[in-house]
This record gives sequence, structure tokens and C-alpha cells, in this order.
Amino acid sequence: MKLLSGKEVSQHVYNLLTDRIETLKKKNIIPGLAVVLVGEDPASKVYVRSKAKRFASLNLFSETLVLPETTSEGELLDLIKRLNKDSKYHGILVQLPLPSHINTDHILDEILPEKDVDGFHPVNLGKLAQGRPQFVACTPKGIMRILDYYDIDLSGKSVVIIGRSNIVGRPMSLLTSLKTQGANATTTICHSGTKNIPEITKMADVIIAAIGVPELIDESYIKEGAIVIDVGMNRVDSPERERGYKLVGDVNQKSIENKVAAITPVPGGVGPMTIAMLVENTVEAAERLSKII
Amino acid sequence: MKLLSGKEVSQHVYNLLTDRIETLKKKNIIPGLAVVLVGEDPASKVYVRSKAKRFASLNLFSETLVLPETTSEGELLDLIKRLNKDSKYHGILVQLPLPSHINTDHILDEILPEKDVDGFHPVNLGKLAQGRPQFVACTPKGIMRILDYYDIDLSGKSVVIIGRSNIVGRPMSLLTSLKTQGANATTTICHSGTKNIPEITKMADVIIAAIGVPELIDESYIKEGAIVIDVGMNRVDSPERERGYKLVGDVNQKSIENKVAAITPVPGGVGPMTIAMLVENTVEAAERLSKII
Repeated sequence: MKLLSGKEVSQHVYNLLTDRIETLKKKNIIPGLAVVLVGEDPASKVYVRSKAKRFASLNLFSETLVLPETTSEGELLDLIKRLNKDSKYHGILVQLPLPSHINTDHILDEILPEKDVDGFHPVNLGKLAQGRPQFVACTPKGIMRILDYYDIDLSGKSVVIIGRSNIVGRPMSLLTSLKTQGANATTTICHSGTKNIPEITKMADVIIAAIGVPELIDESYIKEGAIVIDVGMNRVDSPERERGYKLVGDVNQKSIENKVAAITPVPGGVGPMTIAMLVENTVEAAERLSKII
Repeated sequence: MKLLSGKEVSQHVYNLLTDRIETLKKKNIIPGLAVVLVGEDPASKVYVRSKAKRFASLNLFSETLVLPETTSEGELLDLIKRLNKDSKYHGILVQLPLPSHINTDHILDEILPEKDVDGFHPVNLGKLAQGRPQFVACTPKGIMRILDYYDIDLSGKSVVIIGRSNIVGRPMSLLTSLKTQGANATTTICHSGTKNIPEITKMADVIIAAIGVPELIDESYIKEGAIVIDVGMNRVDSPERERGYKLVGDVNQKSIENKVAAITPVPGGVGPMTIAMLVENTVEAAERLSKII
């Protein structure tokens, strides 16, 4: 069984970005990201911190704007409008989830599509669906990059995606089934309404698990020689560890290691790619907004 | 075998629209559609004429703007901008295909999403993908309406769509797999890159054929008791007919009639629904733009 290391691929991505960042710097452009964090969600704080750290390590500019939990939708919309106009931010990211009194769609719809480095704006999702992607959501984009790095061509393969979230499953189903290099798969999307998931996944050449249920997918879901992408990142109690929990995927990796051809580990698989693609999208935004590409 | 009559369902749609049209008229609003036709494509002319006829028969306003084949992209963009601002048009439809010197995406992207009654603007496709549809493309929307009319609930069913066009297959795959009433299917999208289409369609409870190949789908593609939606509308030579051709679908309907539970005929199946949904979308646009709904 081959381990598909997102850690390795993300390093490769950062290496490739160095030249592009240099080119921008020569034109006095430093790719910049505004991260908007509303409230005190502990997991969100961790994510935001690791994004900021990555940007700093690449000498890119990022700024985290922290707003109180009580921020109103109108105040947040005003902030987005200001960030849209501010040329030092090439990308804008609103950390989700937002407090429940704020309509997330209203906020994400307000982000300028040209600065939507998360790829969550409907116009960016729509362009992806039409086969002319501009900004693609970071996790699905990162998964395609892993496959590409390890020479796994999806063309003619059957791909089954478990999960239809707007952030992973849905864009993944679009990406894999487009008539483009490396994609062109026959894609099925399974979800909570699917009656016989193992029956369906058992026919898949490639399974992409993005459901958020710890270690649900075991050997009964998988055919011999399949490739498994484990998008899950679930905290489960682990009293023997100092921090009290460990991270596991949606796949029971131990149970399938003798059956699959390749798998992305957790951690070190899909996870590192999400931030790498965020960086890449921000560099791309800076290039596009500066008309370098 | 049950025939799923789009002719019957479209009549039902028109009946339901009467009250809404009346309500608008009482407020001095007549739903209006601008149809833009560039060039002399004979099939396009037929389509445009039948749309205009339908609008007239319902006492709705439609105007066909005919431009010469030599119209430049810039000229067409200017026209769209003018139509966007003109309040007598609630909907704008650009008849496709456009001449090859015009970039279709540039034109469709310019249509105000609020007037995009064809549902082709990326923002409308994106919102559909996100499960909050605004304007949905007429043919896929019409197919869902047929299924609803005949009490065919897709939830928990396996749906296989053949064809990934932006106009039918792609939005159809989104619509059927959304977590909404009547949908919630496990959807697979097959296309030119799929190796074993009959193997896949044979497991489907519902098959939606939208490939544009006359009578390709025969009994070898279908499991006993399946429901088949035939989106094809292909002209094949028929010297014995006065007009020299006949219309056939993508399904060899004779060959499967003893095997399937239900099928949409051609003509009289999906076809009439496309115009019915165009009318409905235009009425909806008028209601929304007038803030009645």
C-alpha cells in the first residue's frame, strides 16, 4: 500500500510557488490575505493561527481580523466591503462557522469573486461546474493535486464521493467529472440519503470520504486495489495523550491497509494540502489582480 | 409501461401560472422576455418562434431581437447591457449557439442574474450547486416537474445521467442529488469518458439520457422496472414524411417498452416542459423584480 503524503505534495507546491512569489515581489507586490474570524470557536482559532503561520513562513502578508461574537451581519458585511476595496488584500477568507445570527450565504456572496480564495462564492462554484474554474475550493483542489503528483489519472475511472458538502463533496464531484486532464472520471455522489453506501463504494476505483464520521469506512466498503482519499479530520478522545484527543479520518485505515492500493494518511494527507492551496489561490489572486497572468 | 407526458404536465404548469399572471396584471406588470437571436440558424429560428408563440398565447410579452450573423461580441454585449436596464424585460434569453466569433461565456456572464431565466449564469448554477436554487435551467427543472407530477420521488433512488452538458446533464446531476423534497438521489454522471455505460445504467432506478445520439439507449442499458427520461431531440432522415425528417430521442423506445416502468415519449415528453419552465421562470423573474414574492 502506498501512502499519498499531502505533507510531501504541499512542500512541492510551496517550492513551485517560490518563483511566482519572487516575481511578484520584484513588482513590489506581496500577496496578501485577510482572514476574518468572528467569535471564539477554539477549532477556528487553531485553523486561523496555522494559516497565519504558513503565510509568515513564506514571507507573505496575512492579517487576521478578529471580531466579537456579537458582531452583526451588517457590520460584517461592511467589513467585507472594505476589504474588497483594499488593494493590500488579494484574498479574503471568512473563517467558518459564523455565529448563528449571521447568514453565512449573505457574507460569502459579498466577497469579491476575484478575492474569493476559498472558492465558496456561487460564481466561482458555478464556473467550476461549467468547466472553467477560477478559484476552486482548497480541499478538493488539494486532493486533485495529490492525485496528479502521484500520477493517478482519474480518466475512465469510477470515483465515488461520500458527502455532498459545499466545501468538499460537491466541488469534488464537479472537479473529478470535468473533461479535463487528470479528471474525466465517472463520478457518483453518496450522502445521508443513500441507502446502500458500501454496495456503491465497493465498485469504485477511487473513494473520497468526506463525511465527518470517525473511521466509518472499513474494509466492507472497499474493493481490492482501490485508492482511498480520507478527508476526515475528527477529534476523538484519547486520554493517554497530553492534549486528550487524537485526530482520525473518516476511514478505519488499519482495517483496509492490506486491501487498498493507496491511501492518504490522517494526519499528513489531505490536511496540509488545504493550506497549500489557500496559499496558491492567494498568489494566483495577486497575479490576476496585478494582471501578471 | 407508463408514458410520462410532458404535454400534460406543461398544461398543468400553464394552468397554475394563470393566477400568478393575473395577480401581476392587476399591478400593471406584464411578464416580459427578450429573446436575442444572432444569425440564421434554422433550428434556432424554429425554437425562437415557438417560444414567442407560447408567450403570446398566454398574453405575456416577448420580443425577439434578431441580429445579423456578423454582429460583434462588443455589439452583443452592449445590447445585453441595454436589456439588463430595460424594465419591460424581466427575462433575457440568448438563443444558442452563437456564431463562433462570439465568446458565449462572455455574453451569458453579462446577463443580469436576476433576469437569467435560462439559468445559465454561473451565479445561478453555483447557487443551485449550493442547494439554494434561484433560476434553474429549464430542461432539468422541467424533468423534475414531470417526476413530481407523476409522484416519482427520487429520494434513496439511484439516478444515472448520461451526458454532462452545462445545459442538461450537469444541472440535472446537481438537482437530483440535492437534499430537497423529491430529490436526494444517489446520482452518477456518465459521459464520453465513461468506459462501461450500460454496466452502470443497468443498476439505475432512473436513467436520464441527454447525449444527443439518436436511439443509442436500448434494452441492454436498462434494468427491469427502471424509469427512463429521454431528453434527446434528434432529427433523423425520414423521406416518407413531408418535411423529410422525424424527431427521435436518445432512447430506442420500442426496444425497451416491455422492460421499463415509465418513460417520457419523444416528442411530447421533456420538450414541452422546457418552454413551460421558461415561462414559469419569466413569471418568477417578474414577481421577484416587482418584489411580489
